[in-house]
Amino acid sequence: MTEATSATIPSMASMPAGTLRAFMTLADDSGRFGMIAVDQRPPIFAALARHGNRRPEDVEYEEVAAVKGVLLEVLAPDASAVLLDPIWAHPHHLRKVPGHVGVLSTLEDHDFTLADGERRSHAIPGWSVAKIKRSGAQGVKVLAWYRPDVSTATRDHQDAFVAEVGRECREHELPFVLELLTYPLPGEDPNGSDYARAKPQRVLDSVRHFGDSHFGVDLFKLEFPAELKAAEEFAAGAFDGRCREAVYALDEVRASLAELDEASPVPWVLLSAGVGPHEFAFNLELACLAGASGFLAGRAVWYDALEAYPDLDAIRERLRSVSLPYLRSLRALAQRGRPWTAHRRYEGAIAIEGAGPSWYAEYGA
Amino acid sequence: MTEATSATIPSMASMPAGTLRAFMTLADDSGRFGMIAVDQRPPIFAALARHGNRRPEDVEYEEVAAVKGVLLEVLAPDASAVLLDPIWAHPHHLRKVPGHVGVLSTLEDHDFTLADGERRSHAIPGWSVAKIKRSGAQGVKVLAWYRPDVSTATRDHQDAFVAEVGRECREHELPFVLELLTYPLPGEDPNGSDYARAKPQRVLDSVRHFGDSHFGVDLFKLEFPAELKAAEEFAAGAFDGRCREAVYALDEVRASLAELDEASPVPWVLLSAGVGPHEFAFNLELACLAGASGFLAGRAVWYDALEAYPDLDAIRERLRSVSLPYLRSLRALAQRGRPWTAHRRYEGAIAIEGAGPSWYAEYGA
Repeated sequence: MTEATSATIPSMASMPAGTLRAFMTLADDSGRFGMIAVDQRPPIFAALARHGNRRPEDVEYEEVAAVKGVLLEVLAPDASAVLLDPIWAHPHHLRKVPGHVGVLSTLEDHDFTLADGERRSHAIPGWSVAKIKRSGAQGVKVLAWYRPDVSTATRDHQDAFVAEVGRECREHELPFVLELLTYPLPGEDPNGSDYARAKPQRVLDSVRHFGDSHFGVDLFKLEFPAELKAAEEFAAGAFDGRCREAVYALDEVRASLAELDEASPVPWVLLSAGVGPHEFAFNLELACLAGASGFLAGRAVWYDALEAYPDLDAIRERLRSVSLPYLRSLRALAQRGRPWTAHRRYEGAIAIEGAGPSWYAEYGA
Repeated sequence: MTEATSATIPSMASMPAGTLRAFMTLADDSGRFGMIAVDQRPPIFAALARHGNRRPEDVEYEEVAAVKGVLLEVLAPDASAVLLDPIWAHPHHLRKVPGHVGVLSTLEDHDFTLADGERRSHAIPGWSVAKIKRSGAQGVKVLAWYRPDVSTATRDHQDAFVAEVGRECREHELPFVLELLTYPLPGEDPNGSDYARAKPQRVLDSVRHFGDSHFGVDLFKLEFPAELKAAEEFAAGAFDGRCREAVYALDEVRASLAELDEASPVPWVLLSAGVGPHEFAFNLELACLAGASGFLAGRAVWYDALEAYPDLDAIRERLRSVSLPYLRSLRALAQRGRPWTAHRRYEGAIAIEGAGPSWYAEYGA
């Protein structure tokens, strides 16, 4: 017989109440993330511009909003959470996200500032962490472009931007989901062997840099730390029929993933960054076996369906017949990953910060 | 073929983004509420005090917290939302509420001020709507004691308390769930025929009063507007073996429910207020057929299980074998109610306030 008075709370990791609650809503009940991004901007403008041979900037607001609505209508019910932008998706399509599915909101503008080819990130003017909290979302996603080898000025800019978002997320008790993307500097070929060879170390260095606790990151959204197309086992054209120079063996890729998992002081999920469905499924399985807690992906799931634009019914049908089963298969793969609660930061036991008889009075005071 | 550019948003009711999102999380996907309250205080103190023949004030903090943990552990996964108090439940047991289940938080202190027998409500000192929002909950529940026939001073006090909560809930975009309970004044017998006879009109008058839009109520939590034990069809002792004077016929009770539904300018759910499981099931079915959108109930579901205190394992077992199937049966009954989205306030089509290309910038500014 268990008696009430023996039920004291053991010593364990703690989180603010709001952050804990939001994490639980973003993940599935097993602690894995199966999140769909529909916050893309330039890639969607480009896909829609193919209809009528237009320039991306000539695609109309209503067209983008309508396409995002179709993506959410079909895919949101099978995601553990969705990532919305606040311009086309959030204001029009919240009703398409079932109440049990989490909502993340994008904070960064898709237009970054270029300084000698180095990318500097900014928030969408007029959008904020406070507004994201008020709107009922469960987290803030920020994409920060990063290269370990940029100028001090660019690095300071990115650091200040990320640290400020982290501070505001802690204040509002919203999980801070930081997406890191490396990028080519002028003169580099992102499809070349040198770029592929340098990628693992760049991704690792990014995570080590932003893993410092003063940035306040709660969940990393990371790119696969290698180009699987350039791994020996796939370099003969496994994914796209193009033969490439092999720059590493799959075991080296696995070693990079293990290093990445070791470097991340918080749980992490994999992003798809425009790779195709087959490649992303391989990426995800390898990442989850190395300790990722699932995925936050978009284009790998739904981009092909946009080929049917402007026929929204045809897009809907392709999403239902192709993207949805694929999403379900990714969610099954994600079950091979580590539940976020089992990350060494939490170790399976999580209390609310300050839990006790006077929590309600001292909380946030 | 549906084209993107034809997808303009038709004219429809609108809600703030955060309020809409929270409503969707509190309800099930069909728009009905099946919510479990574990925020009770005096009734739980009383139940636990029976062990050892103690006074309710001698029950320890840890005992109450542990019992609420067991209630949530077993029942939360089968509720569309749970109602937590911020003292015993919220700080210790958030991890027992699955992420897809909504969370409401109680704002009012269980100690009310008595002025010539009239009850005046207050917030728990140190707890607030802002803290409820920060903690990741989806709504604020306030119980306001009410009688249409109290003094102006008491009425003004209650009005000011409720209006202030409504104002703060709008500011934070949290649904305001107002619970109204009538109560006996000195010299009245709450178990007598006169009290039962007067109840329907009192409940109706309460809803009409607080339905005024300046109070900002989003969802009413209402008592059954009659004593079913005193209805002709049940007065011979159907629920408790005690024969009573019949004060109305069931058709009159149905008429009161129809008036109540007509009087409520927002969706409403039924509370259980300590009636037994059989009576509450009748109450709920009648209420849902009259237009209620489900229930927010506690004791009717789990109170009997506390008889096994202090054996928490025995409580757990009774909750699993009796309370859980009963909760599931209530949720099935609630499907006969009106989805909150179909209430005349919304009429099935709900947009976000200010939806459009500049929503993100103008929102909350």
